[in-house]
Amino acid sequence: MKLISSTQNSYIKQLVQLRDKSREREKKGLFLIEGQRELGLALKGGYSLEKVLFCPDIVSLETLTTFIPVMVEIIEISSEVYRKLAYRDSTEGLIAVANSKELEIEDLELITENPLILVAEATEKPGNIGALLRTADAAGVDAVIIANPKTDMYNPNIIRSSVGGLFTNNIATGSTENIISFLKAQNISIYCAALQASKSYDSQNFLNPSAIVVGTEATGLSEAWLKASSQNIIIPMQGEIDSMNVSVAAGILIFEARRQRGFQ
Amino acid sequence: MKLISSTQNSYIKQLVQLRDKSREREKKGLFLIEGQRELGLALKGGYSLEKVLFCPDIVSLETLTTFIPVMVEIIEISSEVYRKLAYRDSTEGLIAVANSKELEIEDLELITENPLILVAEATEKPGNIGALLRTADAAGVDAVIIANPKTDMYNPNIIRSSVGGLFTNNIATGSTENIISFLKAQNISIYCAALQASKSYDSQNFLNPSAIVVGTEATGLSEAWLKASSQNIIIPMQGEIDSMNVSVAAGILIFEARRQRGFQ
Repeated sequence: MKLISSTQNSYIKQLVQLRDKSREREKKGLFLIEGQRELGLALKGGYSLEKVLFCPDIVSLETLTTFIPVMVEIIEISSEVYRKLAYRDSTEGLIAVANSKELEIEDLELITENPLILVAEATEKPGNIGALLRTADAAGVDAVIIANPKTDMYNPNIIRSSVGGLFTNNIATGSTENIISFLKAQNISIYCAALQASKSYDSQNFLNPSAIVVGTEATGLSEAWLKASSQNIIIPMQGEIDSMNVSVAAGILIFEARRQRGFQ
Repeated sequence: MKLISSTQNSYIKQLVQLRDKSREREKKGLFLIEGQRELGLALKGGYSLEKVLFCPDIVSLETLTTFIPVMVEIIEISSEVYRKLAYRDSTEGLIAVANSKELEIEDLELITENPLILVAEATEKPGNIGALLRTADAAGVDAVIIANPKTDMYNPNIIRSSVGGLFTNNIATGSTENIISFLKAQNISIYCAALQASKSYDSQNFLNPSAIVVGTEATGLSEAWLKASSQNIIIPMQGEIDSMNVSVAAGILIFEARRQRGFQ
Protein backbone atom coordinates (compact mmCIF):
# COMPACT_ATOMS: atom_id res chain seq x y z
CA MET A 1 0.00 0.00 0.00
CA LYS A 2 1.20 3.47 -0.93
CA LEU A 3 1.98 5.84 1.93
CA ILE A 4 2.02 9.63 1.63
CA SER A 5 3.50 11.51 4.56
CA SER A 6 4.50 14.81 2.97
CA THR A 7 2.07 17.69 2.64
CA GLN A 8 4.20 18.82 -0.31
CA ASN A 9 3.37 15.68 -2.29
CA SER A 10 2.03 16.69 -5.71
CA TYR A 11 -1.02 14.40 -5.53
CA ILE A 12 -1.99 15.90 -2.17
CA LYS A 13 -1.64 19.35 -3.69
CA GLN A 14 -3.98 18.30 -6.49
CA LEU A 15 -6.54 17.10 -3.94
CA VAL A 16 -6.41 20.44 -2.10
CA GLN A 17 -7.22 22.10 -5.43
CA LEU A 18 -10.14 19.71 -5.91
CA ARG A 19 -11.44 20.60 -2.49
CA ASP A 20 -11.12 24.36 -2.94
CA LYS A 21 -11.76 25.02 -6.64
CA SER A 22 -14.96 24.49 -8.50
CA ARG A 23 -13.07 24.75 -11.81
CA GLU A 24 -10.70 21.97 -10.85
CA ARG A 25 -13.58 19.70 -9.88
CA GLU A 26 -15.29 20.37 -13.18
CA LYS A 27 -12.12 19.89 -15.22
CA LYS A 28 -11.21 16.58 -13.60
CA GLY A 29 -14.72 15.26 -12.94
CA LEU A 30 -13.64 14.44 -9.41
CA PHE A 31 -14.49 15.65 -5.92
CA LEU A 32 -13.73 14.79 -2.28
CA ILE A 33 -15.96 13.08 0.26
CA GLU A 34 -15.21 13.12 3.97
CA GLY A 35 -16.67 10.88 6.62
CA GLN A 36 -17.90 7.32 6.74
CA ARG A 37 -21.57 8.17 6.78
CA GLU A 38 -21.35 10.43 3.72
CA LEU A 39 -19.20 7.88 1.93
CA GLY A 40 -21.72 5.14 2.66
CA LEU A 41 -24.56 7.26 1.26
CA ALA A 42 -22.47 8.14 -1.84
CA LEU A 43 -21.78 4.46 -2.56
CA LYS A 44 -25.46 3.67 -2.05
CA GLY A 45 -26.27 6.54 -4.41
CA GLY A 46 -24.21 4.99 -7.19
CA TYR A 47 -21.09 7.12 -6.95
CA SER A 48 -17.85 5.39 -7.91
CA LEU A 49 -14.62 6.04 -6.05
CA GLU A 50 -11.20 6.59 -7.54
CA LYS A 51 -9.17 6.38 -4.38
CA VAL A 52 -9.63 6.34 -0.62
CA LEU A 53 -7.08 7.98 1.68
CA PHE A 54 -7.05 7.06 5.33
CA CYS A 55 -5.10 8.08 8.38
CA PRO A 56 -4.30 4.95 10.44
CA ASP A 57 -3.88 7.03 13.61
CA ILE A 58 -7.63 7.67 13.43
CA VAL A 59 -9.30 4.84 11.51
CA SER A 60 -8.17 1.25 10.99
CA LEU A 61 -7.69 -0.43 7.62
CA GLU A 62 -10.02 -3.21 8.85
CA THR A 63 -12.86 -0.72 9.35
CA LEU A 64 -12.30 0.63 5.86
CA THR A 65 -12.38 -2.73 4.15
CA THR A 66 -15.81 -3.45 5.60
CA PHE A 67 -17.41 -0.91 3.28
CA ILE A 68 -14.93 0.24 0.60
CA PRO A 69 -15.36 -1.66 -2.69
CA VAL A 70 -12.43 -4.06 -3.21
CA MET A 71 -11.22 -2.57 -6.49
CA VAL A 72 -10.68 0.91 -5.05
CA GLU A 73 -7.06 1.88 -4.39
CA ILE A 74 -6.41 2.68 -0.74
CA ILE A 75 -3.62 5.09 0.25
CA GLU A 76 -2.28 5.57 3.73
CA ILE A 77 -1.65 9.18 4.81
CA SER A 78 0.00 10.76 7.82
CA SER A 79 -1.92 12.86 10.37
CA GLU A 80 -0.24 15.92 8.95
CA VAL A 81 -1.46 15.19 5.42
CA TYR A 82 -4.93 14.37 6.75
CA ARG A 83 -5.15 17.70 8.56
CA LYS A 84 -4.09 19.46 5.38
CA LEU A 85 -6.82 17.78 3.32
CA ALA A 86 -9.70 17.66 5.77
CA TYR A 87 -12.35 20.33 5.21
CA ARG A 88 -14.35 19.71 8.32
CA ASP A 89 -13.34 19.53 11.95
CA SER A 90 -14.23 15.87 11.77
CA THR A 91 -11.83 13.30 13.06
CA GLU A 92 -12.96 10.33 11.01
CA GLY A 93 -9.64 9.98 9.25
CA LEU A 94 -11.18 9.20 5.88
CA ILE A 95 -11.20 11.06 2.56
CA ALA A 96 -12.42 9.60 -0.73
CA VAL A 97 -11.78 10.86 -4.23
CA ALA A 98 -15.01 10.24 -6.12
CA ASN A 99 -16.17 10.59 -9.70
CA SER A 100 -18.76 13.31 -10.05
CA LYS A 101 -21.92 12.79 -12.06
CA GLU A 102 -23.17 14.91 -14.90
CA LEU A 103 -26.26 16.54 -13.45
CA GLU A 104 -27.67 18.12 -16.61
CA ILE A 105 -31.41 18.78 -16.58
CA GLU A 106 -31.66 17.17 -20.04
CA ASP A 107 -30.58 13.85 -18.52
CA LEU A 108 -32.90 13.93 -15.50
CA GLU A 109 -34.93 10.75 -15.26
CA LEU A 110 -38.17 10.63 -13.33
CA ILE A 111 -39.21 7.15 -12.42
CA THR A 112 -42.72 7.96 -11.25
CA GLU A 113 -45.56 9.19 -13.40
CA ASN A 114 -46.68 11.68 -10.78
CA PRO A 115 -43.51 13.39 -9.61
CA LEU A 116 -43.12 15.89 -6.79
CA ILE A 117 -40.12 18.10 -7.49
CA LEU A 118 -38.35 20.84 -5.55
CA VAL A 119 -36.71 23.58 -7.64
CA ALA A 120 -34.46 26.29 -6.17
CA GLU A 121 -33.23 29.20 -8.23
CA ALA A 122 -29.83 30.82 -7.73
CA THR A 123 -29.53 30.08 -4.03
CA GLU A 124 -26.47 32.07 -3.00
CA LYS A 125 -25.09 30.13 -0.10
CA PRO A 126 -23.85 26.56 -0.50
CA GLY A 127 -25.13 25.96 3.03
CA ASN A 128 -28.67 26.80 1.91
CA ILE A 129 -28.47 24.32 -0.98
CA GLY A 130 -27.24 21.68 1.44
CA ALA A 131 -30.12 22.41 3.82
CA LEU A 132 -32.60 22.12 0.93
CA LEU A 133 -31.16 18.75 -0.06
CA ARG A 134 -31.45 17.50 3.51
CA THR A 135 -35.11 18.56 3.68
CA ALA A 136 -35.80 17.12 0.21
CA ASP A 137 -34.44 13.77 1.35
CA ALA A 138 -36.77 13.81 4.37
CA ALA A 139 -39.74 14.65 2.15
CA GLY A 140 -38.87 11.95 -0.38
CA VAL A 141 -39.19 14.19 -3.41
CA ASP A 142 -38.62 12.67 -6.83
CA ALA A 143 -36.03 15.25 -7.86
CA VAL A 144 -34.28 18.40 -6.71
CA ILE A 145 -33.40 20.85 -9.46
CA ILE A 146 -31.06 23.81 -8.95
CA ALA A 147 -31.55 26.60 -11.48
CA ASN A 148 -28.66 28.91 -12.41
CA PRO A 149 -26.41 27.53 -9.68
CA LYS A 150 -23.71 29.85 -8.36
CA THR A 151 -21.42 26.92 -7.53
CA ASP A 152 -20.99 23.33 -8.69
CA MET A 153 -22.89 20.83 -6.59
CA TYR A 154 -19.73 19.15 -5.29
CA ASN A 155 -18.74 22.18 -3.20
CA PRO A 156 -17.59 20.76 0.17
CA ASN A 157 -19.95 23.13 1.97
CA ILE A 158 -22.93 21.66 0.11
CA ILE A 159 -21.82 18.13 0.94
CA ARG A 160 -21.36 19.00 4.59
CA SER A 161 -24.60 20.88 5.10
CA SER A 162 -26.63 18.30 3.17
CA VAL A 163 -25.37 15.61 5.62
CA GLY A 164 -25.31 13.25 2.65
CA GLY A 165 -28.47 14.55 0.94
CA LEU A 166 -26.35 15.36 -2.11
CA PHE A 167 -26.03 11.60 -2.66
CA THR A 168 -29.52 10.44 -1.75
CA ASN A 169 -31.51 12.83 -3.93
CA ASN A 170 -32.10 12.68 -7.67
CA ILE A 171 -30.46 15.98 -8.62
CA ALA A 172 -30.21 18.10 -11.75
CA THR A 173 -28.94 21.57 -12.55
CA GLY A 174 -29.44 23.85 -15.53
CA SER A 175 -30.49 27.26 -16.70
CA THR A 176 -33.90 28.50 -15.65
CA GLU A 177 -34.92 28.45 -19.33
CA ASN A 178 -33.96 24.80 -19.85
CA ILE A 179 -35.56 23.71 -16.61
CA ILE A 180 -38.84 25.41 -17.49
CA SER A 181 -38.77 23.69 -20.90
CA PHE A 182 -38.12 20.35 -19.23
CA LEU A 183 -41.00 20.76 -16.77
CA LYS A 184 -43.43 21.91 -19.47
CA ALA A 185 -42.47 19.04 -21.78
CA GLN A 186 -43.32 16.63 -18.96
CA ASN A 187 -46.60 18.38 -18.10
CA ILE A 188 -45.44 19.16 -14.60
CA SER A 189 -47.26 22.09 -12.99
CA ILE A 190 -45.05 24.92 -11.77
CA TYR A 191 -45.87 26.43 -8.36
CA CYS A 192 -43.74 29.48 -7.65
CA ALA A 193 -43.32 30.69 -4.08
CA ALA A 194 -43.83 34.41 -4.44
CA LEU A 195 -44.64 37.26 -2.09
CA GLN A 196 -47.14 38.68 -4.55
CA ALA A 197 -49.06 35.43 -4.77
CA SER A 198 -52.77 35.48 -4.24
CA LYS A 199 -53.11 31.86 -3.28
CA SER A 200 -52.16 30.44 0.09
CA TYR A 201 -50.00 27.34 -0.29
CA ASP A 202 -52.38 25.24 1.78
CA SER A 203 -55.30 25.86 -0.56
CA GLN A 204 -53.32 24.62 -3.58
CA ASN A 205 -53.80 21.00 -4.64
CA PHE A 206 -50.44 19.28 -5.24
CA LEU A 207 -51.80 15.85 -6.16
CA ASN A 208 -50.82 16.08 -9.84
CA PRO A 209 -47.26 16.28 -11.17
CA SER A 210 -45.88 19.30 -9.30
CA ALA A 211 -42.74 21.37 -9.10
CA ILE A 212 -42.47 23.73 -6.13
CA VAL A 213 -40.09 26.54 -6.99
CA VAL A 214 -38.32 28.75 -4.43
CA GLY A 215 -36.01 31.72 -5.01
CA THR A 216 -33.59 33.61 -2.85
CA GLU A 217 -34.53 35.33 0.38
CA ALA A 218 -33.32 38.66 -0.92
CA THR A 219 -34.76 38.86 -4.42
CA GLY A 220 -37.18 35.96 -4.83
CA LEU A 221 -37.67 34.33 -8.23
CA SER A 222 -36.73 35.74 -11.61
CA GLU A 223 -39.37 37.00 -14.04
CA ALA A 224 -38.96 33.91 -16.22
CA TRP A 225 -40.24 31.68 -13.43
CA LEU A 226 -43.14 33.97 -12.54
CA LYS A 227 -44.16 34.03 -16.22
CA ALA A 228 -43.99 30.23 -16.50
CA SER A 229 -45.86 29.71 -13.24
CA SER A 230 -49.02 27.60 -13.26
CA GLN A 231 -49.96 29.23 -9.96
CA ASN A 232 -48.04 31.43 -7.56
CA ILE A 233 -48.31 30.33 -3.94
CA ILE A 234 -47.54 32.11 -0.70
CA ILE A 235 -46.96 31.15 2.90
CA PRO A 236 -49.10 33.71 4.73
CA MET A 237 -46.74 35.57 7.06
CA GLN A 238 -48.41 36.24 10.41
CA GLY A 239 -45.72 38.39 12.00
CA GLU A 240 -43.57 41.47 11.59
CA ILE A 241 -40.68 39.98 9.63
CA ASP A 242 -41.19 39.85 5.89
CA SER A 243 -39.10 36.86 4.86
CA MET A 244 -38.38 33.29 5.93
CA ASN A 245 -35.26 31.21 5.69
CA VAL A 246 -35.42 29.53 2.28
CA SER A 247 -34.92 25.99 3.59
CA VAL A 248 -37.65 26.45 6.22
CA ALA A 249 -40.04 27.83 3.58
CA ALA A 250 -39.19 24.97 1.19
CA GLY A 251 -39.75 22.48 4.01
CA ILE A 252 -43.20 23.87 4.80
CA LEU A 253 -44.26 23.85 1.12
CA ILE A 254 -42.88 20.46 0.19
CA PHE A 255 -44.26 18.79 3.32
CA GLU A 256 -47.70 20.27 2.62
CA ALA A 257 -47.53 18.61 -0.81
CA ARG A 258 -46.35 15.37 0.78
CA ARG A 259 -49.11 15.55 3.39
CA GLN A 260 -51.73 15.92 0.68
CA ARG A 261 -50.28 12.96 -1.20
CA GLY A 262 -50.01 10.85 1.95
CA PHE A 263 -46.91 9.65 3.72
CA GLN A 264 -45.63 6.19 2.89
CA MET B 1 -23.45 65.76 22.20
CA LYS B 2 -20.80 63.50 23.63
CA LEU B 3 -18.17 62.19 21.21
CA ILE B 4 -16.08 59.06 21.79
CA SER B 5 -13.18 58.55 19.43
CA SER B 6 -10.90 56.27 21.43
CA THR B 7 -11.29 52.51 21.41
CA GLN B 8 -9.63 52.58 24.84
CA ASN B 9 -12.51 54.57 26.33
CA SER B 10 -13.78 52.76 29.43
CA TYR B 11 -17.45 52.92 28.39
CA ILE B 12 -16.61 51.37 25.01
CA LYS B 13 -14.74 48.61 26.80
CA GLN B 14 -17.83 47.97 28.92
CA LEU B 15 -19.95 47.69 25.77
CA VAL B 16 -17.54 45.16 24.25
CA GLN B 17 -18.02 43.10 27.42
CA LEU B 18 -21.79 43.38 27.04
CA ARG B 19 -21.52 42.15 23.47
CA ASP B 20 -19.27 39.22 24.29
CA LYS B 21 -20.25 38.05 27.76
CA SER B 22 -23.52 36.55 28.81
CA ARG B 23 -22.64 37.16 32.46
CA GLU B 24 -22.09 40.88 31.87
CA ARG B 25 -25.45 41.17 30.10
CA GLU B 26 -27.17 39.43 32.97
CA LYS B 27 -25.40 41.47 35.64
CA LYS B 28 -26.17 44.82 34.02
CA GLY B 29 -29.55 43.97 32.49
CA LEU B 30 -28.34 45.53 29.26
CA PHE B 31 -27.52 44.29 25.75
CA LEU B 32 -26.56 45.68 22.35
CA ILE B 33 -28.72 46.02 19.24
CA GLU B 34 -27.24 46.67 15.81
CA GLY B 35 -29.06 47.86 12.74
CA GLN B 36 -32.00 50.11 12.07
CA ARG B 37 -34.44 47.37 11.26
CA GLU B 38 -33.68 45.42 14.43
CA LEU B 39 -33.82 48.59 16.49
CA GLY B 40 -37.19 49.47 15.00
CA LEU B 41 -38.58 46.05 15.87
CA ALA B 42 -37.15 46.27 19.40
CA LEU B 43 -38.83 49.64 20.00
CA LYS B 44 -42.08 48.26 18.60
CA GLY B 45 -41.65 45.26 20.91
CA GLY B 46 -41.54 47.50 23.98
CA TYR B 47 -37.80 47.52 24.63
CA SER B 48 -36.42 50.71 26.18
CA LEU B 49 -33.06 52.12 25.15
CA GLU B 50 -30.39 53.46 27.43
CA LYS B 51 -28.16 55.02 24.80
CA VAL B 52 -27.69 55.06 21.05
CA LEU B 53 -24.22 55.29 19.52
CA PHE B 54 -23.88 56.36 15.93
CA CYS B 55 -21.05 56.83 13.49
CA PRO B 56 -21.71 60.01 11.44
CA ASP B 57 -19.47 58.73 8.62
CA ILE B 58 -22.12 56.09 7.96
CA VAL B 59 -25.48 57.34 9.24
CA SER B 60 -26.72 60.88 9.75
CA LEU B 61 -28.08 62.29 13.00
CA GLU B 62 -31.19 63.36 11.05
CA THR B 63 -31.93 59.74 10.09
CA LEU B 64 -31.53 58.71 13.71
CA THR B 65 -33.88 61.29 15.12
CA THR B 66 -36.69 60.06 12.87
CA PHE B 67 -37.07 56.91 14.95
CA ILE B 68 -35.06 57.17 18.20
CA PRO B 69 -37.24 58.27 21.15
CA VAL B 70 -36.36 61.85 22.16
CA MET B 71 -35.35 61.07 25.71
CA VAL B 72 -32.60 58.63 24.72
CA GLU B 73 -29.03 59.91 24.96
CA ILE B 74 -27.23 59.86 21.64
CA ILE B 75 -23.44 59.53 21.49
CA GLU B 76 -21.28 60.14 18.46
CA ILE B 77 -18.52 57.60 17.82
CA SER B 78 -15.61 57.43 15.39
CA SER B 79 -15.37 54.80 12.63
CA GLU B 80 -12.66 53.11 14.62
CA VAL B 81 -14.85 52.79 17.71
CA TYR B 82 -17.76 51.61 15.56
CA ARG B 83 -15.63 48.88 13.99
CA LYS B 84 -14.54 47.76 17.44
CA LEU B 85 -18.13 47.50 18.70
CA ALA B 86 -19.91 46.13 15.65
CA TYR B 87 -20.64 42.42 15.77
CA ARG B 88 -21.88 42.02 12.25
CA ASP B 89 -20.33 42.98 8.93
CA SER B 90 -23.12 45.49 8.63
CA THR B 91 -22.36 49.07 7.79
CA GLU B 92 -25.39 50.70 9.30
CA GLY B 93 -23.39 52.77 11.75
CA LEU B 94 -25.80 52.28 14.60
CA ILE B 95 -25.54 50.52 17.95
CA ALA B 96 -28.08 50.80 20.75
CA VAL B 97 -27.68 49.88 24.40
CA ALA B 98 -31.03 48.44 25.44
CA ASN B 99 -32.58 47.24 28.67
CA SER B 100 -33.17 43.51 28.61
CA LYS B 101 -36.44 42.02 29.80
CA GLU B 102 -36.90 39.37 32.43
CA LEU B 103 -38.10 36.39 30.45
CA GLU B 104 -39.06 34.08 33.29
CA ILE B 105 -41.64 31.43 32.46
CA GLU B 106 -43.55 32.36 35.64
CA ASP B 107 -44.20 35.81 34.17
CA LEU B 108 -45.32 34.66 30.72
CA GLU B 109 -48.66 36.15 29.78
CA LEU B 110 -50.85 34.57 27.16
CA ILE B 111 -53.44 36.93 25.78
CA THR B 112 -55.49 34.37 23.88
CA GLU B 113 -57.55 31.59 25.41
CA ASN B 114 -56.43 29.10 22.79
CA PRO B 115 -52.68 29.55 22.49
CA LEU B 116 -50.32 27.91 20.05
CA ILE B 117 -46.85 27.72 21.57
CA LEU B 118 -43.46 26.61 20.29
CA VAL B 119 -41.11 25.13 22.88
CA ALA B 120 -37.47 24.27 22.18
CA GLU B 121 -35.33 22.42 24.67
CA ALA B 122 -31.60 23.02 25.08
CA THR B 123 -30.92 24.07 21.50
CA GLU B 124 -27.11 24.21 21.36
CA LYS B 125 -26.46 26.82 18.73
CA PRO B 126 -27.58 30.43 19.15
CA GLY B 127 -28.13 30.44 15.37
CA ASN B 128 -30.72 27.69 15.71
CA ILE B 129 -32.61 29.63 18.39
CA GLY B 130 -32.58 32.67 16.13
CA ALA B 131 -33.90 30.62 13.21
CA LEU B 132 -36.69 29.26 15.41
CA LEU B 133 -37.67 32.78 16.47
CA ARG B 134 -37.79 33.91 12.85
CA THR B 135 -40.05 30.98 11.93
CA ALA B 136 -42.20 31.52 15.02
CA ASP B 137 -42.76 35.14 13.99
CA ALA B 138 -43.88 34.00 10.53
CA ALA B 139 -46.27 31.48 12.05
CA GLY B 140 -47.66 34.01 14.50
CA VAL B 141 -47.39 31.76 17.54
CA ASP B 142 -48.58 33.09 20.88
CA ALA B 143 -45.30 32.36 22.66
CA VAL B 144 -41.88 30.82 22.19
CA ILE B 145 -40.42 29.10 25.23
CA ILE B 146 -36.80 28.02 25.48
CA ALA B 147 -36.20 25.27 28.03
CA ASN B 148 -32.82 24.92 29.76
CA PRO B 149 -31.19 27.52 27.53
CA LYS B 150 -27.43 27.22 27.05
CA THR B 151 -27.07 30.97 26.56
CA ASP B 152 -28.98 34.09 27.52
CA MET B 153 -31.43 35.24 24.86
CA TYR B 154 -29.56 38.49 24.21
CA ASN B 155 -26.60 36.71 22.64
CA PRO B 156 -25.69 38.77 19.53
CA ASN B 157 -25.83 35.63 17.39
CA ILE B 158 -29.45 35.02 18.41
CA ILE B 159 -30.37 38.61 17.61
CA ARG B 160 -28.68 38.44 14.22
CA SER B 161 -30.08 35.09 13.11
CA SER B 162 -33.58 35.93 14.34
CA VAL B 163 -33.53 39.03 12.06
CA GLY B 164 -35.49 40.77 14.80
CA GLY B 165 -37.67 37.81 15.81
CA LEU B 166 -36.23 38.12 19.31
CA PHE B 167 -38.22 41.36 19.65
CA THR B 168 -41.44 40.43 17.88
CA ASN B 169 -42.17 37.18 19.71
CA ASN B 170 -43.57 36.69 23.19
CA ILE B 171 -40.63 34.83 24.75
CA ALA B 172 -39.97 32.99 27.98
CA THR B 173 -37.20 30.79 29.31
CA GLY B 174 -36.99 28.43 32.24
CA SER B 175 -36.18 24.95 33.39
CA THR B 176 -37.94 22.08 31.68
CA GLU B 177 -39.62 21.28 35.02
CA ASN B 178 -41.04 24.79 35.48
CA ILE B 179 -42.19 25.03 31.88
CA ILE B 180 -44.03 21.72 32.10
CA SER B 181 -45.73 22.94 35.30
CA PHE B 182 -46.71 26.17 33.59
CA LEU B 183 -48.20 24.38 30.56
CA LYS B 184 -50.09 21.87 32.71
CA ALA B 185 -51.48 24.60 34.96
CA GLN B 186 -52.86 26.32 31.86
CA ASN B 187 -54.29 23.09 30.40
CA ILE B 188 -52.12 23.35 27.33
CA SER B 189 -51.56 20.02 25.55
CA ILE B 190 -47.92 19.04 25.08
CA TYR B 191 -46.96 17.58 21.70
CA CYS B 192 -43.39 16.31 21.71
CA ALA B 193 -41.55 15.82 18.43
CA ALA B 194 -39.95 12.42 18.93
CA LEU B 195 -38.43 9.80 16.66
CA GLN B 196 -40.19 7.04 18.58
CA ALA B 197 -43.60 8.61 18.12
CA SER B 198 -46.41 6.52 16.77
CA LYS B 199 -48.48 9.40 15.47
CA SER B 200 -47.75 11.33 12.32
CA TYR B 201 -47.87 15.08 12.98
CA ASP B 202 -50.47 15.61 10.25
CA SER B 203 -52.97 13.29 11.92
CA GLN B 204 -52.78 15.23 15.20
CA ASN B 205 -55.43 17.85 15.87
CA PHE B 206 -53.87 21.11 17.09
CA LEU B 207 -57.09 23.12 17.43
CA ASN B 208 -57.03 23.20 21.23
CA PRO B 209 -54.40 24.96 23.37
CA SER B 210 -51.18 23.38 22.10
CA ALA B 211 -47.46 23.46 22.78
CA ILE B 212 -45.26 21.88 20.12
CA VAL B 213 -41.97 20.83 21.69
CA VAL B 214 -38.75 20.18 19.79
CA GLY B 215 -35.38 18.99 21.09
CA THR B 216 -31.89 18.95 19.69
CA GLU B 217 -30.94 17.25 16.44
CA ALA B 218 -28.40 15.09 18.24
CA THR B 219 -30.24 13.86 21.30
CA GLY B 220 -33.89 14.86 20.93
CA LEU B 221 -35.96 15.69 24.01
CA SER B 222 -35.21 14.80 27.61
CA GLU B 223 -37.15 12.11 29.47
CA ALA B 224 -39.06 14.74 31.45
CA TRP B 225 -40.70 16.06 28.28
CA LEU B 226 -41.50 12.60 26.93
CA LYS B 227 -43.14 11.72 30.27
CA ALA B 228 -45.19 14.92 30.30
CA SER B 229 -46.22 14.53 26.66
CA SER B 230 -49.93 14.49 25.81
CA GLN B 231 -49.00 12.85 22.50
CA ASN B 232 -45.68 12.31 20.77
CA ILE B 233 -45.68 13.31 17.13
CA ILE B 234 -43.32 12.52 14.28
CA ILE B 235 -42.56 13.88 10.86
CA PRO B 236 -42.42 10.70 8.78
CA MET B 237 -38.97 10.65 7.18
CA GLN B 238 -39.14 9.42 3.62
CA GLY B 239 -35.42 9.27 2.82
CA GLU B 240 -32.08 7.90 3.94
CA ILE B 241 -31.07 10.62 6.41
CA ASP B 242 -32.41 10.17 9.91
CA SER B 243 -32.67 13.74 11.17
CA MET B 244 -33.87 17.15 10.05
CA ASN B 245 -32.62 20.61 10.85
CA VAL B 246 -34.46 21.65 14.01
CA SER B 247 -35.74 24.95 12.59
CA VAL B 248 -37.06 23.22 9.44
CA ALA B 249 -38.78 20.55 11.55
CA ALA B 250 -40.26 23.21 13.85
CA GLY B 251 -41.45 25.15 10.80
CA ILE B 252 -43.25 22.13 9.36
CA LEU B 253 -44.93 21.28 12.67
CA ILE B 254 -45.97 24.79 13.66
CA PHE B 255 -47.29 25.62 10.18
CA GLU B 256 -49.33 22.42 10.17
CA ALA B 257 -50.92 23.61 13.41
CA ARG B 258 -51.42 27.07 11.90
CA ARG B 259 -52.93 25.55 8.75
CA GLN B 260 -55.44 23.58 10.82
CA ARG B 261 -56.35 26.70 12.76
CA GLY B 262 -56.61 28.81 9.62
CA PHE B 263 -54.42 31.68 8.51
CA GLN B 264 -55.52 35.20 9.36
